[in-house]
Amino acid sequence: MTYTLILLRHGESEWNAKNLFTGWVDVPLSEKGIEEASRGGRLLTENGLLPDVVHTSLLRRAISTANLALDAAERHWIPVKRSWRLNERHYGALQGKNKKEVRDEYGEEQFMTWRRSYDVPPPEIELGSTYSQDADPRYAGEPIPRTEALLQVLERSLPYWDEAIVPDLQDGKVVLVAAHGNSLRALIKHLDGIDDETISGLNVPTGIPLVYELDENFKPTKPGGTYLDPDAAAEAIAAVANQGR
Amino acid sequence: MTYTLILLRHGESEWNAKNLFTGWVDVPLSEKGIEEASRGGRLLTENGLLPDVVHTSLLRRAISTANLALDAAERHWIPVKRSWRLNERHYGALQGKNKKEVRDEYGEEQFMTWRRSYDVPPPEIELGSTYSQDADPRYAGEPIPRTEALLQVLERSLPYWDEAIVPDLQDGKVVLVAAHGNSLRALIKHLDGIDDETISGLNVPTGIPLVYELDENFKPTKPGGTYLDPDAAAEAIAAVANQGR
Repeated sequence: MTYTLILLRHGESEWNAKNLFTGWVDVPLSEKGIEEASRGGRLLTENGLLPDVVHTSLLRRAISTANLALDAAERHWIPVKRSWRLNERHYGALQGKNKKEVRDEYGEEQFMTWRRSYDVPPPEIELGSTYSQDADPRYAGEPIPRTEALLQVLERSLPYWDEAIVPDLQDGKVVLVAAHGNSLRALIKHLDGIDDETISGLNVPTGIPLVYELDENFKPTKPGGTYLDPDAAAEAIAAVANQGR
Repeated sequence: MTYTLILLRHGESEWNAKNLFTGWVDVPLSEKGIEEASRGGRLLTENGLLPDVVHTSLLRRAISTANLALDAAERHWIPVKRSWRLNERHYGALQGKNKKEVRDEYGEEQFMTWRRSYDVPPPEIELGSTYSQDADPRYAGEPIPRTEALLQVLERSLPYWDEAIVPDLQDGKVVLVAAHGNSLRALIKHLDGIDDETISGLNVPTGIPLVYELDENFKPTKPGGTYLDPDAAAEAIAAVANQGR
């Protein structure tokens, strides 16, 4: 008896394409991202992986990716669950800023610390500023952050893993999680038991389903899982690593 | 204290455009239907009607309509609930057939009986045939029909109204129901207390939100509710009445 978990990072967004720090800013998929999402769905079908339930963040790039992938896989009708706890990392005061400009202004070391440090978050976003979510009705009453490093993403996503995703797996459901680079890295760190240093080098490609078979303790039977298109995944991982250059 | 319910019939599907009996066949929206769905969402925004939860059928023309309308209204992130009990009327053996050809073959009276009789369903669909849903995994274990008149739609949709939609209204949520011509007619018949004769003349236009304020007994404060674009609704109702001519 194993459990089947499928992780899917959203396709390219309009701000990925513009090289801006996005975080919780709710930008749509680009045309390329729309195509990536549909391809993700076709990969599910080709591999006979049929989700029984989908979990998404509250951001439209993940929601649209789930909708498009499930439509392509003829699974548009499955139950949907959403939580801000699957949102992308909150990028604090960097949200809306150009990655290259931040790098040029603050230097390579500070830039890489903000992007990749496990536990050093960027400065907090100013409440009421353009790219702040403090007045957004979807987060009303929730203990949302004003900035995060990966550590904080892990701390707020793991309760959702335990309380919402694991019960669906225990019910024998094939679970699809459509989310973001950093919320998925947090789940992968937890699943594969990756240490705080090593996780900084791990990238998740967009639009390529990553399948984990989990044992009775919810540990991967194969560490790192399996990308449904391994060649495309390897190529995309290299491209992600070069963002901001 | 009133409750707010919004009914939204899906936009034109590829088979509406081809004049085929669709029923439970899971066809996509046409380009026109996609535009109608987005316009429905813009009408919600313009009227300050912000759904807190959406209920859909298991058919992609309603699911896509909900997705597109909610995206246009910036409410793509709300909770989603789905049920086959909100599906279109099952058209039995007529599914997949051209409306004009059925009318020419069986005559106007039989044609109108199948389309509009309150309680005379078309012949049952043959199990295992092209447009039958008996092997469709989304209905596994459910007591699904092989044909329906409006009476049977009412009988299977009202339990969902009572057990799933009313509780959301009681929680004070603005509820959006994205569904089909006949499942919405069934709900409207129940809400407005329309008799079995009169309901046959009632048509619901596609893509135009119909808003009901309901009193503490879930009865409309204004019979018939309010279309957000009354002129377009009147025009579309006339067009629906001419289908099959």
